Amino acid sequence: MIKTIGVIGGGQLARMMITPAQELGLTLKVFAESEESSASLAATSIGDYTAYETVRNFAETVDVITFDHEHVPLTVLEKLEAEGFKVQPSSSALRFAQNKLSMRKKLSELGLPVPAWAEINSAAELQNFLVEHGGVAVLKTPTGGYDGKGVMIVRSVEDAAEWLAQGRPLLAEEKVEFVRELAQLSARNISGQWSSWTVVQTVQVDGVCSEVLSPAPNADATGAAIIAKRIAEGLGVTGVLAVELFETSDGTLLINELAMRPHNSGHFSIEGSITSQFEQHLRAVADLPLGDTKPTANFAVMLNLLGVDDNHTFIEHYPQALKISGAHFHTYGKSARKGRKMGHITALSANSIQEARQIAVRAKEALHA
Amino acid sequence: MIKTIGVIGGGQLARMMITPAQELGLTLKVFAESEESSASLAATSIGDYTAYETVRNFAETVDVITFDHEHVPLTVLEKLEAEGFKVQPSSSALRFAQNKLSMRKKLSELGLPVPAWAEINSAAELQNFLVEHGGVAVLKTPTGGYDGKGVMIVRSVEDAAEWLAQGRPLLAEEKVEFVRELAQLSARNISGQWSSWTVVQTVQVDGVCSEVLSPAPNADATGAAIIAKRIAEGLGVTGVLAVELFETSDGTLLINELAMRPHNSGHFSIEGSITSQFEQHLRAVADLPLGDTKPTANFAVMLNLLGVDDNHTFIEHYPQALKISGAHFHTYGKSARKGRKMGHITALSANSIQEARQIAVRAKEALHA
Repeated sequence: MIKTIGVIGGGQLARMMITPAQELGLTLKVFAESEESSASLAATSIGDYTAYETVRNFAETVDVITFDHEHVPLTVLEKLEAEGFKVQPSSSALRFAQNKLSMRKKLSELGLPVPAWAEINSAAELQNFLVEHGGVAVLKTPTGGYDGKGVMIVRSVEDAAEWLAQGRPLLAEEKVEFVRELAQLSARNISGQWSSWTVVQTVQVDGVCSEVLSPAPNADATGAAIIAKRIAEGLGVTGVLAVELFETSDGTLLINELAMRPHNSGHFSIEGSITSQFEQHLRAVADLPLGDTKPTANFAVMLNLLGVDDNHTFIEHYPQALKISGAHFHTYGKSARKGRKMGHITALSANSIQEARQIAVRAKEALHA
Repeated sequence: MIKTIGVIGGGQLARMMITPAQELGLTLKVFAESEESSASLAATSIGDYTAYETVRNFAETVDVITFDHEHVPLTVLEKLEAEGFKVQPSSSALRFAQNKLSMRKKLSELGLPVPAWAEINSAAELQNFLVEHGGVAVLKTPTGGYDGKGVMIVRSVEDAAEWLAQGRPLLAEEKVEFVRELAQLSARNISGQWSSWTVVQTVQVDGVCSEVLSPAPNADATGAAIIAKRIAEGLGVTGVLAVELFETSDGTLLINELAMRPHNSGHFSIEGSITSQFEQHLRAVADLPLGDTKPTANFAVMLNLLGVDDNHTFIEHYPQALKISGAHFHTYGKSARKGRKMGHITALSANSIQEARQIAVRAKEALHA
């Protein structure tokens, strides 16, 4: 039986796995980048996750390796697997989360709904794509992007000159005229059991998630769940899978991004579901039965707390903010920096999404005041 | 502002404070008895809590001292306070939780409902008490008792010969013919804000809590809350206060025991209330506004997991037990021992206490199978 779970990455996602690991009596060990990591409480190794020997030494102390982020080089993971270490999700699934070009190819092969796309290896290919798609494209570096980084809107080959000059393949996608963004969270354990949460609406500001509404009002919940299940099974994902979706004006869903780990769009589940995404991820990668994902309240709203400046840690405002009834505060223990994800707030309501949102907004305002 | 909270005692109560401390971004430091404590994740000191210098060294690393148990000698706490260290609850309140004779005297002075009682310093005094109370008494050692230890039913002076021979004062109480036991949990912060949860029914087996039903069906919730508030204010309690109550056949409530810390009767609040007793305790001793104690579901049932033998850690049964939908598992990370509190299970229901209990019982049975 898997009793010790190793997480590579010491960010807030690893931090939020500490509680369910402790509740279930599993041991969580975190491989962090620095002493000051968000998950420092459970950190047992500090080092460079791209250095094979360092990661291997960590792997020897745990029963299974999983992740707080998708940046561990595939070569490192493949070598671990070749030596018999358990890695969940496996490198064969994770490569689709690491490389957007591989992801688009695979999803297209599976017949899943994606925006029109092309691999771009030259200015001519990009020019061609622009002509075919109304003179505008979303150009992406296949690897390394997150929170709006590694993404550019281009209207001419000149816009992309710098990236093209690097000589690496790029991904061009049509600019989808979406009306809103949704996210479908689900989890699959090693034995293949799969379970989803309700589809949520995500609101992005400057490419960073700002708020999440659960459930997404009037969304195609069944359609979103079917897409997520086909991805989880088709790509052999284990653990939590987040599928970010565009919804167009006629209600069509198109797959935007994938993450194979707990995800910002699922933080609402800590209070808003019988089983949180963090507990479910641990159950899945330990190959335990998945937990019940029914909501604990009809409506949930999650608001991110983004860094204001180098001083504002939000905690100073607790004497006012903690008076807000019904708001759940989650602090990530990070030093303050403008734009950094410093924490989040969740509020629930039996009555309406508006009521939940009002509570969360009041709490957020009090933390900024 | 209080940002670092020190807990003396490394048991499951300290363990369950780790999550809310992390969520709120407060630092929790635990003074544990051994390396293998339940709260080892947050342990920063290991030592003897009766040794003043050791406790003082720990106190210097935190903003406030609080407790996982009430066994720290009053002399140690008074010396800390005299040196200016913050202790919450303070020694002036905690002495009533440490000494049942002091507690009975104080509650009687406050005019609160308690069983008939007397201080016993001789066989003659005990004989007198037995004659006046139908030939039976509950005899207690004023200090050191817990989970049924330090309590004896006596029907003659001879029954108490060993305790009387020790020459220390004893507490005699009438044997209350109660129909059930209730517990009223509440919390009071340093500024005096007070808040209660719903009154619960507790079921004891062999003097150890076995299960908790929230709310207690058909109980005098208002009466219980009034008693708790008068105790919290009358004794100057800070942090969580658990008041254990007897309910007699006519619905009268009599105060049995007090605990000034999170308590087994309040574990249901982790899932069953917007604010858990562990979060509330931290808020209270950090003098932050108290959180909302409204229930998250109409009904909650908590079942304790008591050790079966030296091998059974419950976790081995997860492949079956975690299939039980709606059960929340809490494991304390202790080595197995017969009768030891190893963990607990909570289940909620919108419909009935029976439904919540059925879920919890099924999960408990699966963990024993």
